[in-house]
Amino acid sequence: MTDIPGYALLGRVKTPTDLRRLPLAELPHLAVELRRYLIETLGRIGGHFAANLGTVELSLALHYCFDTPHDRLVWDVGHQAYPHKILTGRREQLETIRRLGGLAPFCHRAESEYDSFGVGHSSTSISAAAGMAAAARVKKEKRRAVAIIGDGGMTAGMAFEALNHAGHLNLDMLVIYNDNDMSISENVGAMRDHSARLMKKLALAQAPHHLRAPQTEHENEAHLDNPGALFETFGFKYHGPVDGHDLDALMNVMTRLRDAKGPQLLHVVTTKGKGFGPAEADPIKYHGVTQFDPVTGAFPSKKSSGKPSYTQVFGDWLCQVAAQDEKVVAITPAMREGSGLVEFSKQFPERYFDVGIAEQHAVTLAAGLACEGLKPVVAIYSTFLQRGYDQLIHDVAIQNLPVVFALDRGGLVGADGATHHGTFDLSFLRCIPNMVVMAPSDENECRRMLSTGLHIDGPSAIRYPRGNGSGLELDAEIKPLTLGKARIAREAIGRRRPRVAILAFGCMVQPALEAAEIIDAVVVDMRFVKPLDVAMIHDLANENDLLVTIEDNVKMGGAGSAVNEVLMAQHMTVPVLNLGLPDHFIEHGTREELMAQIGLDASGILRSIQKRLRAKDLDESVIAKKHVS
Amino acid sequence: MTDIPGYALLGRVKTPTDLRRLPLAELPHLAVELRRYLIETLGRIGGHFAANLGTVELSLALHYCFDTPHDRLVWDVGHQAYPHKILTGRREQLETIRRLGGLAPFCHRAESEYDSFGVGHSSTSISAAAGMAAAARVKKEKRRAVAIIGDGGMTAGMAFEALNHAGHLNLDMLVIYNDNDMSISENVGAMRDHSARLMKKLALAQAPHHLRAPQTEHENEAHLDNPGALFETFGFKYHGPVDGHDLDALMNVMTRLRDAKGPQLLHVVTTKGKGFGPAEADPIKYHGVTQFDPVTGAFPSKKSSGKPSYTQVFGDWLCQVAAQDEKVVAITPAMREGSGLVEFSKQFPERYFDVGIAEQHAVTLAAGLACEGLKPVVAIYSTFLQRGYDQLIHDVAIQNLPVVFALDRGGLVGADGATHHGTFDLSFLRCIPNMVVMAPSDENECRRMLSTGLHIDGPSAIRYPRGNGSGLELDAEIKPLTLGKARIAREAIGRRRPRVAILAFGCMVQPALEAAEIIDAVVVDMRFVKPLDVAMIHDLANENDLLVTIEDNVKMGGAGSAVNEVLMAQHMTVPVLNLGLPDHFIEHGTREELMAQIGLDASGILRSIQKRLRAKDLDESVIAKKHVS
Repeated sequence: MTDIPGYALLGRVKTPTDLRRLPLAELPHLAVELRRYLIETLGRIGGHFAANLGTVELSLALHYCFDTPHDRLVWDVGHQAYPHKILTGRREQLETIRRLGGLAPFCHRAESEYDSFGVGHSSTSISAAAGMAAAARVKKEKRRAVAIIGDGGMTAGMAFEALNHAGHLNLDMLVIYNDNDMSISENVGAMRDHSARLMKKLALAQAPHHLRAPQTEHENEAHLDNPGALFETFGFKYHGPVDGHDLDALMNVMTRLRDAKGPQLLHVVTTKGKGFGPAEADPIKYHGVTQFDPVTGAFPSKKSSGKPSYTQVFGDWLCQVAAQDEKVVAITPAMREGSGLVEFSKQFPERYFDVGIAEQHAVTLAAGLACEGLKPVVAIYSTFLQRGYDQLIHDVAIQNLPVVFALDRGGLVGADGATHHGTFDLSFLRCIPNMVVMAPSDENECRRMLSTGLHIDGPSAIRYPRGNGSGLELDAEIKPLTLGKARIAREAIGRRRPRVAILAFGCMVQPALEAAEIIDAVVVDMRFVKPLDVAMIHDLANENDLLVTIEDNVKMGGAGSAVNEVLMAQHMTVPVLNLGLPDHFIEHGTREELMAQIGLDASGILRSIQKRLRAKDLDESVIAKKHVS
Repeated sequence: MTDIPGYALLGRVKTPTDLRRLPLAELPHLAVELRRYLIETLGRIGGHFAANLGTVELSLALHYCFDTPHDRLVWDVGHQAYPHKILTGRREQLETIRRLGGLAPFCHRAESEYDSFGVGHSSTSISAAAGMAAAARVKKEKRRAVAIIGDGGMTAGMAFEALNHAGHLNLDMLVIYNDNDMSISENVGAMRDHSARLMKKLALAQAPHHLRAPQTEHENEAHLDNPGALFETFGFKYHGPVDGHDLDALMNVMTRLRDAKGPQLLHVVTTKGKGFGPAEADPIKYHGVTQFDPVTGAFPSKKSSGKPSYTQVFGDWLCQVAAQDEKVVAITPAMREGSGLVEFSKQFPERYFDVGIAEQHAVTLAAGLACEGLKPVVAIYSTFLQRGYDQLIHDVAIQNLPVVFALDRGGLVGADGATHHGTFDLSFLRCIPNMVVMAPSDENECRRMLSTGLHIDGPSAIRYPRGNGSGLELDAEIKPLTLGKARIAREAIGRRRPRVAILAFGCMVQPALEAAEIIDAVVVDMRFVKPLDVAMIHDLANENDLLVTIEDNVKMGGAGSAVNEVLMAQHMTVPVLNLGLPDHFIEHGTREELMAQIGLDASGILRSIQKRLRAKDLDESVIAKKHVS
């Protein structure tokens, strides 16, 4: 019995068990409904979109052929796993996805037994599935493990590490190589070039019906007709390419591969945005969407807030300095749109390096460029810099090379959730010698910090949040900052005791100012997480009864912790309230909701300070200070 | 004119310019001298050895063919760069290598203009050389860039990321693939299996004289006879394999490739230990050596200290628990010997996973294994965990999976220097939610912590130093610890003011105890960096006038910083002296020399505490405390 009008089949399929009871002949009809459901739902709520239209048939075939959840499916990244979610008991909740308390944006072990591995960052799936296959061997269990990875995800080094090891172990596992010739932007890299040449040759791009291409024998070019050579070098048996929208073909090959021994790779060619004209025509635009018209694909006209995003501020700054200084080059690991580099890539194509999803290489490439006297700017999301951490330490910081890290999405990112929050960067960066770490409080500060980074003869990171700035007027001239100097953002009016000074970092300056109005606190925009303004901290400690540090990084080891260290080193035993993110992972929701939830909006900050002011020790401290002064 | 007896040619070659003046016919003789010099010098001083015998001819050919230092050579890892150092003006200083103030263990930009990129960790060279080649293109300079990377280094993902990108950009660069079928241990991975099959087929392993193998046409196996398929997929033109000890062959092919356009890869087959019988026969034993007899290769009989290394303690513990619990599995990224896994790999081959140099995959493989109910132990050097940082956060910690990280080489490692010190781990680990972080003060504590990790239903790291324990008697039974409980290691005898309590972490407990004898301080073995023993810290703060934290991690964001955070959160404004590593990179030397130099030996600790005790604020604080008590 269907439970939603207009979806005769989908309404009956609540679990993969239901699915497996359907006659094979009904699957194409179910695919039509599933795709329609995606278009209607995502048109209404927004979310990751185009990639999910590409995996409709694949999801059906996998759950039909494999005994899920006993068999393990590991979806790489997970932004293409909406069909999987719908087919595994989460259809009705799909409209809550990415929202506070709703379905997780990606696969999530706690959400469903069908989500065998939590994902979010790309290229982890082969390693995880290899672990599961190896565990089945150790435990002598019959259990299949399948990784589904895109051609974008395949450019990251860890995917190769996993292929190399799984092939060596001769694990019984299947890798589905979901080749849509797209990362979030167009995919890049030689492997992609090669694949594109191949597809063109086989005319697969237009008409993906095919089987294995015939071998030819051009010296040194044999591999061009053998898309499997790469994978076979790693010990995988290559199958395909198969049209990923042809259910018969998919079912045939998967049935054959289900119980195949040893590592198998199935090359599936899909179209991102499949079945929805506007998304097929512009899959980048429809990768992640806000609401849209499910018939025309039209987006409601955006009401511009007039406030530029930090991403936009960075992109404009980069074009401006690159026009003045031909040594400026920019590097992105597959995030041209997200990092604000579209304009730069057009204006300065020869100085623009999209390395693909390859954060490690991105950082060390920058080190190599810096060795030759260029001024590389690595535009990278905070959370993805975790992938290049060793390279930042080993190749950039130890050699004290002038590489600027433009860290976008610092702090909580909102709907992408725990895997994507940039909430550890201040901790993992400030412990590294030679690093200069800055966090801007507004757009002008951001530009000044970026220019400061460009002037420093060593590595620096400028960490700014997702979302919009304040919309203030931009300075005509961008003046670099003095290294390690904070600025007073608000003086106290009276100086009633206990006197409070708030040391705010980055985007926390604004809510700190709001809270400070109520309690008449001093607010300092610290600007630099490293080096800290020691003189300023010294003065503030002398003149106040309570220091409050505020950051949107975890408190553990963060900027506030750095202030504590300075105070201890300066022999100053002033009470400090460290505010920041708690010691647990934070799930998805809007940035505003999450910040309010953890008490880092203005009213939360005020509450925390007022609570701290009520503690007894502070009275004693005030009394002691009065005695001294 | 030669300047050393017995080395007619080497004595005349002080720089590559001298080398390039030699007639080609003299190079084989120079190779003989160079090899003899290496054997004699390293027999006397010890150091990285076998890999250097493999690169003698390669180094000569490179400096002869290329216009160094204008052309850039980037040696991967650098433990095979001794011939390069000898040929670039550092022959006489070679006997100081790895010693305090002596030559750096690897390539180092500050040491020589011929060291175009600092190295240490593997697999960075292609990225760095790609950066240099890209810079030459941007700057319109004619400058060649060459990366020399081993087959071990080629298993790391970042090497593939770099190949993929360099191929895409069609950069003019040369990658020398130095294939000796060895990592530090035997190399592993499917690529290696494939290469070994190939070598066998071509009989290259025994008699490395050859040229390109003929093509055959076995369906799906064409690549087995085409070692270049992998590299050609990445857009590199493949050349070789060439015998890396045949100077004529090397010179021929390099001369041809020197000015070739586009990305070129030259496959060179070398023998680790070449020319020294004992090292050829056992290259693992001779990878890094202490002194040995330059004729027989015999090592002086080791005087056993009777003190086991922490590595050994870990290895024994692992075998013991694995015998009792069949769910225990172990993972190493190519460090079987160094991590103490030889015995485990023999006893439990089916539960032993050497993934090759592939730290990212190692961590996520462990996550996959843990998902299936196994108990993975990842044995990894602290410095190499930096490569798996995102995977630790994203795949292990977010999912709260029970993976035990056995972190060897925590703190300063000595002769391997700045690239290899494990001095950031406490900072970058403790900021991650769900992590339990422990540091043992002796061998029994180490075993108890490892067993504690195995009992925790979430991730944990046990971080122990390079070198020997105290040699104390091992407990018959290994009792897990109570989570987050410290232990008092020394009570004070008197309690003269100012009263001092030392909160020591890991291997710093021992020197802390020595210092405490002089000043009658309380010493607490904190055991847990996370979670900290808050109750203990609270009591210590109440009962003492000065707290001293000591760790062999950087002070920034480290364990002491965590103690500060607790004190602030507990509203306790007691003076704290944070001791630990300073905010600059520390070069090579023995561990003892370096620890003394930075004041972290017992006398340095004592000096620092006594200096702090002389500060005026402490008198005031003592007076205040007297008032209160």
